[in-house]
Amino acid sequence: MTHPLFERHQALLDQALKALADRGYWSAFPESPSPKVYGEGAAEAGKAAFDALLDKPFPLTLTGAAGTTGAERSPYGFPLGISYPKVDLDALFAAIAKAESGWRKAGPEAWVGVSLEILARINKRSFEIAHAVMHTTGQAFVMAFQAAGPHAQDRGLEAVAYAWDEMRRVPLKAYWEKPQGKNPPLKMEKHYRVVPRGVGLVIGCNTFPTWNGYPVMFASLATGNAVVVKPHPNAILPLAISVLIAREVLTEAGFDPNIVTLVAHATGDDTAQKLALRPEVKLIDFTGSSANGEWLEKNARQAQVYTEKAGVNQIVIDSVDDMKGVARNVAFSLALYTGQMCTAPQNIYVPRSGIDTAEGHLSFDQVGEALGEAVQKLLGDPARAVEILGAVVNDSVAERIDAARALGAVIADSRAIAHPQFKDARIRTPLIVKLDARDAAKYLKEWFGPIAFVISTDDTEQSLSIARRAVREHGALTLSVYSKSPAVIDDAVAVAEDAGVALSINLTGGVFVNQSAAFSDYHGTGANPAANAALTDAAFVAGRFRVVQHRMHV
Amino acid sequence: MTHPLFERHQALLDQALKALADRGYWSAFPESPSPKVYGEGAAEAGKAAFDALLDKPFPLTLTGAAGTTGAERSPYGFPLGISYPKVDLDALFAAIAKAESGWRKAGPEAWVGVSLEILARINKRSFEIAHAVMHTTGQAFVMAFQAAGPHAQDRGLEAVAYAWDEMRRVPLKAYWEKPQGKNPPLKMEKHYRVVPRGVGLVIGCNTFPTWNGYPVMFASLATGNAVVVKPHPNAILPLAISVLIAREVLTEAGFDPNIVTLVAHATGDDTAQKLALRPEVKLIDFTGSSANGEWLEKNARQAQVYTEKAGVNQIVIDSVDDMKGVARNVAFSLALYTGQMCTAPQNIYVPRSGIDTAEGHLSFDQVGEALGEAVQKLLGDPARAVEILGAVVNDSVAERIDAARALGAVIADSRAIAHPQFKDARIRTPLIVKLDARDAAKYLKEWFGPIAFVISTDDTEQSLSIARRAVREHGALTLSVYSKSPAVIDDAVAVAEDAGVALSINLTGGVFVNQSAAFSDYHGTGANPAANAALTDAAFVAGRFRVVQHRMHV
Repeated sequence: MTHPLFERHQALLDQALKALADRGYWSAFPESPSPKVYGEGAAEAGKAAFDALLDKPFPLTLTGAAGTTGAERSPYGFPLGISYPKVDLDALFAAIAKAESGWRKAGPEAWVGVSLEILARINKRSFEIAHAVMHTTGQAFVMAFQAAGPHAQDRGLEAVAYAWDEMRRVPLKAYWEKPQGKNPPLKMEKHYRVVPRGVGLVIGCNTFPTWNGYPVMFASLATGNAVVVKPHPNAILPLAISVLIAREVLTEAGFDPNIVTLVAHATGDDTAQKLALRPEVKLIDFTGSSANGEWLEKNARQAQVYTEKAGVNQIVIDSVDDMKGVARNVAFSLALYTGQMCTAPQNIYVPRSGIDTAEGHLSFDQVGEALGEAVQKLLGDPARAVEILGAVVNDSVAERIDAARALGAVIADSRAIAHPQFKDARIRTPLIVKLDARDAAKYLKEWFGPIAFVISTDDTEQSLSIARRAVREHGALTLSVYSKSPAVIDDAVAVAEDAGVALSINLTGGVFVNQSAAFSDYHGTGANPAANAALTDAAFVAGRFRVVQHRMHV
Repeated sequence: MTHPLFERHQALLDQALKALADRGYWSAFPESPSPKVYGEGAAEAGKAAFDALLDKPFPLTLTGAAGTTGAERSPYGFPLGISYPKVDLDALFAAIAKAESGWRKAGPEAWVGVSLEILARINKRSFEIAHAVMHTTGQAFVMAFQAAGPHAQDRGLEAVAYAWDEMRRVPLKAYWEKPQGKNPPLKMEKHYRVVPRGVGLVIGCNTFPTWNGYPVMFASLATGNAVVVKPHPNAILPLAISVLIAREVLTEAGFDPNIVTLVAHATGDDTAQKLALRPEVKLIDFTGSSANGEWLEKNARQAQVYTEKAGVNQIVIDSVDDMKGVARNVAFSLALYTGQMCTAPQNIYVPRSGIDTAEGHLSFDQVGEALGEAVQKLLGDPARAVEILGAVVNDSVAERIDAARALGAVIADSRAIAHPQFKDARIRTPLIVKLDARDAAKYLKEWFGPIAFVISTDDTEQSLSIARRAVREHGALTLSVYSKSPAVIDDAVAVAEDAGVALSINLTGGVFVNQSAAFSDYHGTGANPAANAALTDAAFVAGRFRVVQHRMHV
């Protein structure tokens, strides 16, 4: 019998499966925060729900809770004042072990049905979660709504659809009859059971707790694993709300809510390491620094570890039709969420001799100036600027801007902007610094934040050669090329395929290199040091479950 | 345009894909060595081809060869006298790097087409390879023909089919159009390219060089990777012939043959470690000891490592209809290839109070005696016995029999049998020793070879509880249960699914627990310490390639 929650969402799942196969545009959850879509009063109710969470204990009851933790502070300049249960890990894992057996037995349709119901309920709370994301990550509101709401939900759905697509290919049973010449055939009945790996640990990040969190939470949950969510200490709330919703749905569906739990903890303690080394943990999904990611890959050997780490994203400018269009597009990519995206470009390679454009030749310095001017123009109006930039997520970003300023000649300086609503918010515009190809020690590492380098090269061939080396040695999630020459485009495609990085070509309109669309773009390739897996593809889900068979004669 | 080799084998591939989905009986390569199937004179020609290889350099020319290696000795008592090129690894990997670019670009249809053509050609040389396997592993001829020939080829095909099934789901391109309200939609064209991970290293084993080798060789090759085959120093020849065939096909298809290479080496040197740590190696497939497998998992961190290691396979006897039928079946499993199979049972749990049978109660000792008698009866005729047992693969198996004899009361002693044709062959019958559940230190580890323990337990509940613990802590590829009670069967299924091991129920006829059928049975689960992957499932192939995309406006 089909699980009722599977049945409820089956039409949506079928659409998602078709979208994954076609990879054209498709979205399950509308990105517009309009009342026409989410209903009159939804925005206000969401804001009120968020406000109601401030300055009190978060309404989550966990087994093994002893004391509280939590010291989140909005990048817009105020403490959230929310406390979360602090859990004893032994008690928590004992509770999870108890919860697992019913969940394991429920099988793929129940896992997928429950996952889809959780996503549907999360979608209904998109406004509340958007405020939670805004005031933990610093994302501006509309971006927090879209990227951390419907886009993140679409990515969660994508993971569920991939999981289902892999699991449904394992038949429940088979009849096996092997001829034996003149003797009667051998006849067997075989049964195949999809079983989870164990506990999936989700290690959240500060900047994109839900966009990076949902695909991994749902990839593990939809394949029958229990999920322990360990948010970044500065961005607990969005995942805490999501965990609360998951537990509600599990309970209503007759499962033990401890299938999805939250381990909030204080900055700088060793909770992540302790969790990662638990023998029960068989899957770990991590987004964060290369140092922490590599520690997990090296030490958490009882688990399959999926990591998204640092990288150096790059733009190669060879020749353009319309420099203004290019500069507008690149400026937006540098400014969006203060460059605090794992996909934001950092290194912009331009030939030392300049580039050809439809309006004539531009010198190297003119290209840099055009980029700098586009940034200033985009962010000239403070009220509009803060809606693009959002706020600086933490002190280290601000310190990094200061350090980068000293690296070379400044093309566009980073400015502080006052936020019209939040007087203590820290808002910074991008810094653009001029470097030369020889300065590899400066630019061949990640400068996380609104920091870009315009780098003079001998020619586009050298630009592509540096780009290839950077991807291979330092990792990258994105590469972008601007050229009017089909031969250069071909070369760039070859470099991208060889080094293993997604390539965007001649983006001048409303698509930006830092954006990755669910059901169409693969986020990360798994083929370079920035990530050991793509989110999401078959490889990302297929290892989260195993098949156990039994056979007997009939 | 479809690659001609893909086209040639497409009908076979389609059948294989259907077989994988259905998981009923299907085989592409006939297991019968009859002249009616393989042609008049095929057997004789194969034997002659094998004989022609003896006592001379193997006809394989490799870039970077410097000197020779090879000291294989048939377990039937004579040296093969074959030398193989010894290669300088730096020179070899330089040659592979040169070969890779054309192969990478060829794409999935070419990779799959070439793989299938190689398998078809290998099938034609099944007799020659059977002799090579017999005289490196000790398998008796018919088993060497079937298991190392058509069955291994079926398993290679299974891996190719899984690889194709995953790769074909990535579209070549997509058209993406996102509505923008009243503004014109955003329109993009996206291209997706399947790219290999790099070099796949295959570390072969002594006992099943092709049965364990083909699935991994073809899983990596069919996903576009170059493959370096490092055979066990005692079982080079079967893989050397296979590599030779692969290189012939690659050359004929216009590819550089260095896509598939062989690294033969001497026992005890550090070639495996050196290969495993090469930065070019991104996939490692290993079959062998737990110590070596764990070394790879720990140290070869630049690669995805798939391991099949030691385990403790078990039989739980609760109650039976026909003890003679059970004993016959179990005796064959213990005797087949001298118990030198990774799937052969070792621990047989029987309640101390005995068991119920259709013919009345049997005491614990009577069950042990029945098993011992069945072994003696099966192997009573030396001429027939050697065709089941084959030969002892190496000294350590013989030494282990002697050590095990001292562990407890001997139910059936291991005897030496003279081979009618090969006077220096070392043939041994199984040893069966009586132990008690308390002797966990003795039986909770792998005693590789023809060594079985009949272990007295409090009851079947304890038998299953020990079995669960053994699988979880020490790994297992197989579990078998005999019971007339549906409740006990249900419990055994629950234990198998919980611990993650394939279960066979009440085998008394012509199917044996150590046998695993391509396209139907999963070999290994990846869910217990005996193997970190199943051969073959989606997870086994999906991580062997990556997808790299590029996108542009249209």
